[in-house]
Amino acid sequence: MKSFTVVAWDGDAVLYVDQRLLPAEVRHERARTVDDIEGAIKSLAVRGAPCIGVFGAYGVALLRQTIADDTAFAHAAKRVREARPTAVNLAWAVDRALASADPLKEARAIHEEQIAIDAAIADNGLELIRKGARVLTHCNTGPLATGGGGTAAGVIIAAQRAGKKPRAFVDETRPLLQGSRLNYLELRQAGVEAVLIVDGAAAVTMREKKVDLVIVGADRIARNGDTANKIGTYGLAILAAHHGIPFYVAAPRSTFDFSLASGAAIPIEERGAGEVAGFAGTRVAADEAAVYNPAFDVTPAHLVTAFVTECGIVRPPYAESIPDLELRPFVSLAGA
Amino acid sequence: MKSFTVVAWDGDAVLYVDQRLLPAEVRHERARTVDDIEGAIKSLAVRGAPCIGVFGAYGVALLRQTIADDTAFAHAAKRVREARPTAVNLAWAVDRALASADPLKEARAIHEEQIAIDAAIADNGLELIRKGARVLTHCNTGPLATGGGGTAAGVIIAAQRAGKKPRAFVDETRPLLQGSRLNYLELRQAGVEAVLIVDGAAAVTMREKKVDLVIVGADRIARNGDTANKIGTYGLAILAAHHGIPFYVAAPRSTFDFSLASGAAIPIEERGAGEVAGFAGTRVAADEAAVYNPAFDVTPAHLVTAFVTECGIVRPPYAESIPDLELRPFVSLAGA
Repeated sequence: MKSFTVVAWDGDAVLYVDQRLLPAEVRHERARTVDDIEGAIKSLAVRGAPCIGVFGAYGVALLRQTIADDTAFAHAAKRVREARPTAVNLAWAVDRALASADPLKEARAIHEEQIAIDAAIADNGLELIRKGARVLTHCNTGPLATGGGGTAAGVIIAAQRAGKKPRAFVDETRPLLQGSRLNYLELRQAGVEAVLIVDGAAAVTMREKKVDLVIVGADRIARNGDTANKIGTYGLAILAAHHGIPFYVAAPRSTFDFSLASGAAIPIEERGAGEVAGFAGTRVAADEAAVYNPAFDVTPAHLVTAFVTECGIVRPPYAESIPDLELRPFVSLAGA
Repeated sequence: MKSFTVVAWDGDAVLYVDQRLLPAEVRHERARTVDDIEGAIKSLAVRGAPCIGVFGAYGVALLRQTIADDTAFAHAAKRVREARPTAVNLAWAVDRALASADPLKEARAIHEEQIAIDAAIADNGLELIRKGARVLTHCNTGPLATGGGGTAAGVIIAAQRAGKKPRAFVDETRPLLQGSRLNYLELRQAGVEAVLIVDGAAAVTMREKKVDLVIVGADRIARNGDTANKIGTYGLAILAAHHGIPFYVAAPRSTFDFSLASGAAIPIEERGAGEVAGFAGTRVAADEAAVYNPAFDVTPAHLVTAFVTECGIVRPPYAESIPDLELRPFVSLAGA
């Protein structure tokens, strides 16, 4: 497989690999306009909560270069900020770039910080994975999801590099198959013994393959620890609790929305019927008349054993530990 | 959509619709040889535990007509009997046809009995579905799955006919999408308000859509009530218990294997990696090197609220009620 660039600044464009085509095809695109930026996010050509944050910040820098009129620029930036509603990282990164006198410098800082943050998450998560651990995971949470080293998959890859030889069970993650297309690819490229399963096989895999832990990423985490993540995560958390398996969420502090009291306030994106009624360009259902397709679900905090962040492992009681996390000094690279 | 014949005797062949092509194409085939019969079952062109029982019995009748040599006939019948390992109905129906002096008469009786049994299951299940009930279901359990009126989907369709207007949430059921391809089709054709979801959305659907009950079919039920059914069923049962939702299994008595003490003794078929790594001729994963693809899982009896059978609703304690079920008088149409 050809190597690829997840997201990069390219002078007069934001370069990205079209994640919808992976792993079959490695096609890079250059976003040059607000339509390009918004379209890449909406269509999921660029996806993953931290990754769309980095991409959105570069987008603001690009728009600032190309749109002289302040009102038109503000309008364009708002379109990028609102391209997807659930992940908080996008709005957070766009706001940071907008607040800066030098949006490009800020976007580059956000990207470099993400790389450093992911490395710290991976380091902090290592202690959770014993030698030979069997780890079940969902969706894609490797480099493609962040523009850095990844969150949940980043922890698994770090364990592999540390010689722990973890075994990863990879949910395919319908409807868009980020697990089979992206996570399986990234884990295997990193040398991890990854095994692909359908989402419906997670329960029997936990029981029959003696899964030691589940680790997933997140799109938005409320102040009480309720966690929005890719559809299927809530069910996994219930299955893990039923089997007595710890359930971890790996996410940067930028994924926490300290302003939200609980997950009930997290907006959940519902996507088109075609994603479910079809598969790889082929219609599979008789019609698309009635499909319920929430892209995310919310896992209540009591099902989360701990959060793995760049600031360390955040454990219950979350009513204390998450407000503590908010107060940690934030080290930005933008001023460096 | 053209109407179709699930399974029928056709003089010198067993007629069937190729379920792999539905709903895109209605193609009937005629099985004339042991290769045809075994191939149709193994490839899932004919599937559904009761349906492959009916098909297998007709297959024995066909082989008895076409193979004069008793040893060759016995060998061919054994191939049909062992074409798939998990559903007990296949071996049960083949054995019945083999034990009869007139296999065709016996096969026809098995088919007619299945139609009558399904009608009785639907009648008995009606009491579980209140007006406007929201019902979640998995895989295909309508007419295509039995050659009669269906088991779990048959109950839902009966509720629709009784004016109860149930709302059905239909798991797509990866990897082979029997839910989106077949169950969604059959329920909507019967006028049921069916809503299609990915398997990973079952948990949030239970919570957000206030599901009242889950009802599924079965491939083999042990004497203690442990139930083998399509992959994903075990997880659904855990999710239902977590949400306080009753979990019902609708199945004919022929699906009970009274000889097995528990589900641990049920053989679980593992199928090829390509079903998970690809779809509709498109490879979706980077490779097929490591896939875990059990076609079924076993739900422990304590997660099953009750069984809906042609003999009535079988409730715990199963240590008493299932042995009772075995002793009910069996009404065969073969002697009628």
